[in-house]
Amino acid sequence: MRFTSERHLDDGLLEREFRLGEVPGILWTPDCASAPAPLILLGHPGGLHQMYPRLVARARYGAVEGFAAATIELPGSGDRPRLADAEQARADLRRALKAGEPVDDDIVDRLVLPLVERAVPEWRAALDALLALPGIGGPVGYSGGVISIGVRLAVVEPRIRAALLFAGSVVPRAMFEQARQVTIPLQVLLQWDDEGNDRQVALDLFDAFGSAEKTLHANMGGHTGVPQFEGDDGNRFFARHLR
Amino acid sequence: MRFTSERHLDDGLLEREFRLGEVPGILWTPDCASAPAPLILLGHPGGLHQMYPRLVARARYGAVEGFAAATIELPGSGDRPRLADAEQARADLRRALKAGEPVDDDIVDRLVLPLVERAVPEWRAALDALLALPGIGGPVGYSGGVISIGVRLAVVEPRIRAALLFAGSVVPRAMFEQARQVTIPLQVLLQWDDEGNDRQVALDLFDAFGSAEKTLHANMGGHTGVPQFEGDDGNRFFARHLR
Repeated sequence: MRFTSERHLDDGLLEREFRLGEVPGILWTPDCASAPAPLILLGHPGGLHQMYPRLVARARYGAVEGFAAATIELPGSGDRPRLADAEQARADLRRALKAGEPVDDDIVDRLVLPLVERAVPEWRAALDALLALPGIGGPVGYSGGVISIGVRLAVVEPRIRAALLFAGSVVPRAMFEQARQVTIPLQVLLQWDDEGNDRQVALDLFDAFGSAEKTLHANMGGHTGVPQFEGDDGNRFFARHLR
Repeated sequence: MRFTSERHLDDGLLEREFRLGEVPGILWTPDCASAPAPLILLGHPGGLHQMYPRLVARARYGAVEGFAAATIELPGSGDRPRLADAEQARADLRRALKAGEPVDDDIVDRLVLPLVERAVPEWRAALDALLALPGIGGPVGYSGGVISIGVRLAVVEPRIRAALLFAGSVVPRAMFEQARQVTIPLQVLLQWDDEGNDRQVALDLFDAFGSAEKTLHANMGGHTGVPQFEGDDGNRFFARHLR
């Protein structure tokens, strides 16, 4: 892990960009943490630069509770090489949605499964590097982003103790089986009128999770309309499970 | 309104029983409130005596935020005269559930509609009396209980600014039309595996509410298994809207 930039944000947050091999990432740590901070991994749909304003806002929310936050670029996004198969699947998905056709399971599998296969080991490698830094102590929470990556991480990565997921419906059928294997506490955000997601599929996925503690927070508004108070709710969820 | 008893609970809460005409009720006020307190009306399924432990627990939660809380007995419950028609409908409902038969709309209408018709004016009269007391200033929130009473109160009573409702499925079809007329902020609690409620009907009712701000919190566990952290979440919901 190699830090490539460092700056202090005006609200007591240290922001450091890094590279882990070829994978770019960002780490935010509260300046004044007195003890090693729990860490929240910030998931996103790909494109760190484009997602930066929302990512830093989420990092600032977490810092209020004394949490560090980190994220890495997804395979095929940002300045990373495109994945030809996923690009083709994405084009097929767009074509189907535009034509009002049902989205074939095969398209979803081709779009999501290779992404999960590549991304999950990268997030785990990032976790190895981040938890070795002074000032970051764990435990670890995972928040948001591509839900299939969150589900797979929740199954395979024992250092992740709680996950806040954004409900999505572009989910391979295989992920429902994975969801049954998840046992960590979950909070799932669902935008009730999300233009890009099928509500029933999102509810079915919530139903499938094996966790004894799982909470669904459904709010009005479209895909990007998550109310601000869910930031506080997310903090309290992580505070319950990471402290 | 006539107070019939008064006692100080050990955590700084004054509990007063009262009668409003023939209707018994309980009022809890924080001892140390410095300004007139917002008021939360505590709904329940009927039977003040039986419900007391849960009601006082909810009142204690609210008092942490400086809220007063009050409740009244429902028509036909506790020491109030039974309602013959509702008793018959309740027996019919139990028979249908026991036989595994679908519950006829007519049974639900006979059980719930007369209860709503009688209860709502009583809650409004209680509100008149409570808001005339020194130390209680409004605004007013409504919390829990028979969801059809909460829905109807939210439509007709402008002093109620926010409502925290418990999702139920024993809801007359007419209530879906009422739900569309609700515009105040709502938080709706749904127990995902509630043995006494149909999940899909509860989701449909949530969908029907006309409020621009409505949030669904779904949790695991049966009818009485609402997690303790929802008490904090409810407080924050009311704090956002009653302060």
